[in-house]
Amino acid sequence: LLAGDDRIAGLDIGGTKLAVVLSNARGEVLAKRSEPTRAKEGPEAVIAQLLAMLEALLLDEGMWMQGLEGIGIACGGPLNSKTGVIYSPPNLPGWNAVPLKELVENATKLPVIVENDANAGALAELRFGNNPKIRNLVYMTMSTGIGGGIVLDGRIYHGTNDLAGEVGHQVVMPDGPECKCGKRGCLEAICSGPSIARRARQHAAAEDTLMLELAGNDLESITSAHVFAAARAGDSLASRIVDETAYYMGIGIANILQTLNPEVVRIGTIAVRNGDFFLEPLRRYVRQNTWPSIFEVCRIEAASLGESVGDLAAVATFLERQWELTGTD
Amino acid sequence: LLAGDDRIAGLDIGGTKLAVVLSNARGEVLAKRSEPTRAKEGPEAVIAQLLAMLEALLLDEGMWMQGLEGIGIACGGPLNSKTGVIYSPPNLPGWNAVPLKELVENATKLPVIVENDANAGALAELRFGNNPKIRNLVYMTMSTGIGGGIVLDGRIYHGTNDLAGEVGHQVVMPDGPECKCGKRGCLEAICSGPSIARRARQHAAAEDTLMLELAGNDLESITSAHVFAAARAGDSLASRIVDETAYYMGIGIANILQTLNPEVVRIGTIAVRNGDFFLEPLRRYVRQNTWPSIFEVCRIEAASLGESVGDLAAVATFLERQWELTGTD
Repeated sequence: LLAGDDRIAGLDIGGTKLAVVLSNARGEVLAKRSEPTRAKEGPEAVIAQLLAMLEALLLDEGMWMQGLEGIGIACGGPLNSKTGVIYSPPNLPGWNAVPLKELVENATKLPVIVENDANAGALAELRFGNNPKIRNLVYMTMSTGIGGGIVLDGRIYHGTNDLAGEVGHQVVMPDGPECKCGKRGCLEAICSGPSIARRARQHAAAEDTLMLELAGNDLESITSAHVFAAARAGDSLASRIVDETAYYMGIGIANILQTLNPEVVRIGTIAVRNGDFFLEPLRRYVRQNTWPSIFEVCRIEAASLGESVGDLAAVATFLERQWELTGTD
Repeated sequence: LLAGDDRIAGLDIGGTKLAVVLSNARGEVLAKRSEPTRAKEGPEAVIAQLLAMLEALLLDEGMWMQGLEGIGIACGGPLNSKTGVIYSPPNLPGWNAVPLKELVENATKLPVIVENDANAGALAELRFGNNPKIRNLVYMTMSTGIGGGIVLDGRIYHGTNDLAGEVGHQVVMPDGPECKCGKRGCLEAICSGPSIARRARQHAAAEDTLMLELAGNDLESITSAHVFAAARAGDSLASRIVDETAYYMGIGIANILQTLNPEVVRIGTIAVRNGDFFLEPLRRYVRQNTWPSIFEVCRIEAASLGESVGDLAAVATFLERQWELTGTD
């Protein structure tokens, strides 16, 4: 059983950024490092990079590897959360069946837990976010993609082959725009950052809009941040795109509510950065598309850990598995 | 702990039909009675009717009430599965906060468990259907309405206020047809029996179709059974309506798969009656709208207990709660 001052390392493997965090068992971050991922050099190089970052962090803190209780790793899926093997995530080229858990365990002689990053984010929100008494929580990433982690009755629900929670690829617009995943009309194909920007660019050519000015008059440079900034300034096209985003995101969340009847849905990056400007229309569309008795018990919020949810995701994963093993809560 | 020969009663409360079943703990039905529900007379009358049916059934079998280990009750929701209080189901007028569990416990002096009928059906499929090793199962009713019961990691998932699994009221056609629930574009508003019949009637007036003949040339008499019968006979309009039904049902099920990554989805009445004639196009549309890695691990089937799933639903509910209490599986 872990005590509050026990030290845990959290490793966050993203396609563009690696982060290493040192934390105690209360989820307080003691030190942190991050570097751009040397993704092109393949899995061995990235894992070596990660271990070097961890060793440098420990050195700075005057610690040895054996002073850690264990390591949690959050990584893009698909992966097997039991064996800790990674299966070709779209953002990590060349990671074909990489036994990440085993490799890091062998290198560090420490217990290692590997979890999908959206699930890990859900655990961080559950354990370290607002209101830790929550039992049923859905965490949604909303940035480059739309992912999800589902906590039911206080535990991550993994599904049959670790693919539960892929709520960004529910179909909310039959025969809608093509999604990177190969399907059509997925929530992600309309409401992810790049999808919001794509819709903005499609219309910005034909219509006078502040978005274009914010993007230095370069149509191709328009991002979702420009869309939200222009909408806040009252730009009519940008406001329509934000409203449409809230509408489809509202349908997607309403469908999750009708299926899972959760206590809270927490949404990452774009919702964190835009707060009620986005959440208010979003809640209105969720309410419109779900039952009052289901809507009333569920809070629709930005991730309560804000943009630092990623820092605690990997740590929460390790702590969670320890709690499961020891049967404590 | 129950032994295989222990006797359990299952009571099934529907808006049009009441059923009482005597079973052993292996889920073998020993005797059964059913009667039309005296729904108009209100809850006291219906509960009295149900208890009289149970007493008559026991008398026939030469048993006393105290020879039963307990009673499971399956009833339309909304209801509280812990307290056993029923809150105004649409098909049971006047059932406002009826303490069903308490009333039946007081009348019989037996332990009573109350469960939502779709959840109870899911439990029956889990315990007594094909392949009892399944851990993650979604059961969908598909008749007057579309309901759902979700079994995750071997247990019914109830949600925050007993409203999980209302997958028939996910939105699959934004701004689509009005649903009885008050929303628009719900799966139920397109794919339930009455919704299939409604769409058939809308088109049958303008187009030559076998459906009209099957319904005695009375447009208003067309039912979903006529639609499927005409489609089997090659009728073009009926075939289009069946295909459209499979298309939207496919999207709804695909969305469930992306969220829950289950091992099996079992579908009631309409899928049971039409088998592969409906399930084959349905599976094609599910495949088209979900990820291969999620689709491959999930079987889309008709309820394996067929139309007798209702007989075992209430019994399975009682057994399940006993298993939970004793911690055995």
